[in-house]
Amino acid sequence: MEIAIPLFDRFTALDAVGPYQVLSGLPGARVRFLAAEGGPVQSDNRMLTMVAEGRWEDSPQPEVLVVPGGPGTRDLLGDERLLAWVRSVHETSRYTTSVCTGSLVLGAAGILDGVDATTHWMEMDLLRSLGAAPASERVVERGKVITAAGVSAGIDMALRLAELIAGPVVAQALQLAIEYDPQPPFDSGSPEKAPREVVDLVRAW
Amino acid sequence: MEIAIPLFDRFTALDAVGPYQVLSGLPGARVRFLAAEGGPVQSDNRMLTMVAEGRWEDSPQPEVLVVPGGPGTRDLLGDERLLAWVRSVHETSRYTTSVCTGSLVLGAAGILDGVDATTHWMEMDLLRSLGAAPASERVVERGKVITAAGVSAGIDMALRLAELIAGPVVAQALQLAIEYDPQPPFDSGSPEKAPREVVDLVRAW
Repeated sequence: MEIAIPLFDRFTALDAVGPYQVLSGLPGARVRFLAAEGGPVQSDNRMLTMVAEGRWEDSPQPEVLVVPGGPGTRDLLGDERLLAWVRSVHETSRYTTSVCTGSLVLGAAGILDGVDATTHWMEMDLLRSLGAAPASERVVERGKVITAAGVSAGIDMALRLAELIAGPVVAQALQLAIEYDPQPPFDSGSPEKAPREVVDLVRAW
Repeated sequence: MEIAIPLFDRFTALDAVGPYQVLSGLPGARVRFLAAEGGPVQSDNRMLTMVAEGRWEDSPQPEVLVVPGGPGTRDLLGDERLLAWVRSVHETSRYTTSVCTGSLVLGAAGILDGVDATTHWMEMDLLRSLGAAPASERVVERGKVITAAGVSAGIDMALRLAELIAGPVVAQALQLAIEYDPQPPFDSGSPEKAPREVVDLVRAW
């Protein structure tokens, strides 16, 4: 089972690495990181560099597509080469998925027209403008199109994907292998739960 | 504030990228990925490659050290060059931390002698053999030495670190920025909670 994760300049690393960490553990799975050209790709803050093993088109028919997000997605919404690949992959994929603002790319590719989907909580309006129906769930599953909310939500989505692909025992084992028994020190992970000053601070960033 | 994350052959990517994603958002923070030699470093399953910007010793006095884990840590427990750097960093660090089996490296460096610490749930005996007192908390904070349990626990640890460094408002904002409102599909993230067959499956892997 081939799982393609496209990288691009100024991607958000955890968007890509969270799902990678879960899905690469699926029996028989091969995760492939791809980019416009193979080679190094820098994250949003320029502090992390990952290496793409090849070009996007080097994976023409992956079973699973996971599009990560990041500020760099803004430059992709008119990238016809990437969008053509995404559209083509979606025709034969078993699952077409995104994390965070990766859903904007799915939207720009025309995959989310009238489809419930999610993105980072600050980008819901942009997601709507690309044809999707923003939904407030952390992981939005509509047929084979599955979108996750901001950044860390990709881990939850990947575990659900693992369940769909390999069943609940394997999915639970993958969760146990990464010891995903989350105990965040605060309950500030969504704008509905975070104090007002915290929401304002993130908006100011 | 410099935050050093040493990489090594067969590291577990989420161990490094989880804390990076949180800590790189701290105002004024610079996360540096370092390795034996600068350049590409492969993860445990060979499906992900990150680039180290330089050698471990290129960061002689980082304020924060985060040692990730992975199967590659076994080869590090006798790596005197790495252990000497870790010891030296620890002398002046504000926080010396680890994720997953990264604590084995701290142990081998002599930093955990008689100190409560944690690691991946499958490696508690090895941690004990390296001088530490294994503790069952997800994030074990003992003075400036903070160790996290397996893989995903590095995210929880990093948020606590963010609180210690920049206060609770900034830490909550970092949690909100990565939308860390975890909703795993199962409650199988620790061996105490997972069904027996799931624990057995992970042990068999």
